[in-house]
Parts: sequence; C-alpha cells; structure tokens
Amino acid sequence: MSSTGEPLLGAIEAGGTKFVLAVGHSPTKIIARHEIPTRDPVTTLVQAGDWFVAQGVINSLGIGSFGPVDLNRSSPLWGHITHTPKPGWAKCDVAGYFADRLGVPIGFDTDVNAAALAEYQYGAGKGASSLAYVTVGTGIGGGLVLDGRAVHGAAHPELGHIFLRRHVEDHEFAGICPYHSDCLEGLASGPAIKARWGASLSELPTDHIAHEIIADYLAQLAHSLIAMTAVEIIVFGGGVMKTEGLLERVDQRAAELGAGYFPGGSKHKIVSPGLGQNAGLAGALMLAPLV
Amino acid sequence: MSSTGEPLLGAIEAGGTKFVLAVGHSPTKIIARHEIPTRDPVTTLVQAGDWFVAQGVINSLGIGSFGPVDLNRSSPLWGHITHTPKPGWAKCDVAGYFADRLGVPIGFDTDVNAAALAEYQYGAGKGASSLAYVTVGTGIGGGLVLDGRAVHGAAHPELGHIFLRRHVEDHEFAGICPYHSDCLEGLASGPAIKARWGASLSELPTDHIAHEIIADYLAQLAHSLIAMTAVEIIVFGGGVMKTEGLLERVDQRAAELGAGYFPGGSKHKIVSPGLGQNAGLAGALMLAPLV
Repeated sequence: MSSTGEPLLGAIEAGGTKFVLAVGHSPTKIIARHEIPTRDPVTTLVQAGDWFVAQGVINSLGIGSFGPVDLNRSSPLWGHITHTPKPGWAKCDVAGYFADRLGVPIGFDTDVNAAALAEYQYGAGKGASSLAYVTVGTGIGGGLVLDGRAVHGAAHPELGHIFLRRHVEDHEFAGICPYHSDCLEGLASGPAIKARWGASLSELPTDHIAHEIIADYLAQLAHSLIAMTAVEIIVFGGGVMKTEGLLERVDQRAAELGAGYFPGGSKHKIVSPGLGQNAGLAGALMLAPLV
Repeated sequence: MSSTGEPLLGAIEAGGTKFVLAVGHSPTKIIARHEIPTRDPVTTLVQAGDWFVAQGVINSLGIGSFGPVDLNRSSPLWGHITHTPKPGWAKCDVAGYFADRLGVPIGFDTDVNAAALAEYQYGAGKGASSLAYVTVGTGIGGGLVLDGRAVHGAAHPELGHIFLRRHVEDHEFAGICPYHSDCLEGLASGPAIKARWGASLSELPTDHIAHEIIADYLAQLAHSLIAMTAVEIIVFGGGVMKTEGLLERVDQRAAELGAGYFPGGSKHKIVSPGLGQNAGLAGALMLAPLV
C-alpha cells in the first residue's frame, strides 16, 4: 500500500532484449519505471527483484513475458518460460522467482497478450469488440483480445508461425525459422529480411521489391486473422513496422486480398499502436492481481 | 409450453441445400425433426413456418444459418443473410420472418458457430478449453468457441478464405473462389477438387496425389488455427471429410507442419464430429433463448 492508500502494483515487461519494470496505481498511473538488459536468468531476475524491493512494498505484480510460456495455472510449469532458444532461459521459473522474492500474488501472460489487453482497453482498440496486437521484429508474435479477454486456448497464440502464399518474386528464399522454415516469421521477421537482402527494410530503397513482398506477407497475416476470428482492430508494432510506408502498404494489400468479402467490412482496421512503446508495460500492470 | 410443462424450443439449421427443423426441450431432447429442401426464400421460409405452427406453441427459436449473416443486434440487417451468391437469398431477413410468423424470441448465429457450440458442449470438445468446427464440402467454413463462447469479432469467422503455401505438385491450378481465387476454399472444397481432377476425392485412388495435396491444405488450416488461437480441439466435418483416410492424413500432416513447436503440445487434437450429423441442429437448439 502506498502512502496515498491506493494499492501499489508492480509490472514487468520481460523481453528477450530488455526487462522494463514499473510500479504504479493503475495502467495509466505509472509512478516509477526502470529498464535493465536481459542477461542470464539469475543476473536479470535478481536485478529486477532488487529494483522492486527498493520501491517499497507492492501489493501484487503483473508479468508480460517473452515466450513460449506455460499459462496453465494447474501445471507445475505455470509461469515458466518453456522451450526458448535463448541460452539459459528454457524452463526458467519467472513467476516463481518473484512470488518467492516479493511475497505477492503474480499475474502472468505473454508480453503480446499484455500489449493486446492494453491496446484494447486504453489504446487503438477503445470501443472496439476485439483487437489483435502483432509485433514484427526479431520474431513475429501477437496477442488476441476477444470479448474483452486475452485468448489462451490450450496455451497462447504463436501467430508468427502460419504458412503463407509465397509472393511470385520470392520463391527462391528458403526461410529462416528453425521449426517451420518459410512460415511468416521465417520470411518476414527482421532477421529474415536481412538474410534475404543484406539490409533492414528501412535501409532498402522504397521501390525495392522487398517492401511489396513483406507487405504482402503481413497483409496475409491480417487477412487470416480476420478470416479466422473476425477481429476488428489489428495493431502492428515492432521494429520492422517503423519502416516508412509499411503500415499503409499492409493496409492496402490486405484490402486487395480481402476483396470486400468479409462480413465485418469497414469495421476491420489495420493501425499503429495507440500507446506507442508503452502497450506492453501498461498491459503488464493490467495483469497485476487486484488484492 | 408443452404438456410436460417444460419450455418447448424450436431450431432451424438453415443450409444452402436443406433446412433441418426441430422442436425439443433441450439440445439433447429433440421431440420432432423435419427436413425441407432449400428453394427460393419465400417458399422455404413459409414451408418451415408451417411446420413449426403444426408442432404447437414453441417458446423460442434458435437459427443456425448459412451465410455470411449479420449478427450485430443493433444493425437493421441483424438476422439477415447478407451477400450470398445463392439466388434470392441476399438480404433475406430470416430471423425477422420467424419472429413475425411465430411471435417468439429468436437466437441467431452462423450454422458453423452453432455446430461448434454443440460439439464443444456435448460432442468432441467435452472438457476442453476451446474448439473449432470446420466443414469441408461445397464450401469451407467454420466456427470457433473460446472460453465457452462463439467467436464473433466484428461479424463472424469465414475461415475457408485464408491463403496457403501451395503444395509443390499443385502450382498450376488457379483456384475457383470468385473472391480470392486460390484461398483454401478455392483449392480444397468439393467443387475445387472436381474442377482440378474431374472427380470427388473419395472417387480418386488412394495413391492419387490429390489426397496428399488436400490433406496438406486442410492441415495448414489446422496449423493456422492453432497458431492464431491455440484452439485445443479441431473438428473436421462435411462431405469431403467422408473420404476414407483423409482425417488421419490431415492429422499426420498437421503434426509434421507444427514440428513440435506449439506450447499447447498434445492438447491440440484433430478429430471427427462427436455428434455426427447432429451438431448443427443441436447447436441451433442451444441458440434458442431461454424465456
């Protein structure tokens, strides 16, 4: 409890590159924020724990984590990162560490589900029925909010791993996904772009075919999301989406692919994050149990 | 109210080929059932209405309809079929006709959402977190139940219209979907199979490449459903799925495509309908408002 009497909530946006930490009274009332680089698990978790201890007593903690993660509350691996290729992090008990160290209830979900929840509630999805949050960077991932709740199914979405109709000018490249070769992540993530053309998308001239190819693939993702879930708002974030003109290309290509067929019509929108870089952290605060 | 004092519910599974009508006390207690061929809207709706009138007074009616349909309760077109190519049925007010004729509250959803609800509650999905119902026949469609509720998003899924990675032996065929050419429905529906190979899948010898190609495409659908929603149970029904060995081929191919990546692991299952031909009608009864 803070001096104001309002509960103080903690939040961690646990990414593969950095951990973003915060305490606040609500997702829109952040009091303090701190970033640490993601090193090995022990170093990273202890450093994060130290920071929270220094903030005073928090009531609960929400964690939005990179994954895959185990979200099954009745599983002994709940709150763990499962089989990431990131050295040391496979089977890491992220939630358990903070539960022990801080002695507070923990909310835990994927980083992208957290971001989707925040965008749905406070960002690009305000007033909409449903929202998908897609991030295109080192990998391609996403979270989905339908009827106000993050979709979990048997675990959580891994939407970067769908297969696509190959672009007519892109039949040679084998793809770089270690599991699926030429799935979306294997074809359109930052490293896949670099492997194919030796540069990031924003470094390539605007008339380079790469822009058209990547936009086509991301538009197919949007098209499939609409076909499968009729989701209303699709937010595209992440490093690759900073490429000038890419969002507009994706939007235009998705309209071409849809060909006016979907019954949701103009309700389906492809947009940038309404919360900018803050969706993941705000979402992690939303995950903190209210106790 | 029936003579037993239990409310009597009506149900319509409104398909493009036939309307299946029923009255019952619950989705598992059907008292009478009747089928009529789908002709023009006036003939069909009047005939269906006559049958219900002859059954005595019902308390409410559930309709699972072919589509696309308008499911937005605040839309003037709620309960209408929207832009079907089926002559006469575009903009047909199916729900409105029965509301006027029978004077009872109407529940309305897609035929495949109804089937998904019934399979989830009483069929292949009993005890699971989530279920998708896919039908592969004249068209390819599906419904999705997550957290016990049918997914609507901005309207309803149209999951037959995703794009796919083309099979290496199937690059020539242009596809027959009038909207998307080589989407899943354009490549793997009954008419697409006939257009490509001059026969239905079950008429082709078991070593014909068609079996491998169609299984690959349907497995990609299952793979994408899992990637996007982590759905636990995927039910495949419809005429094409009666092809011997097809479900097993789809299951095996989906496992190959997934390559053990998805965090839901062995929870994801590809199965036949648990309710056989009755899922749609049972689901329509589930849609009947309890008044």
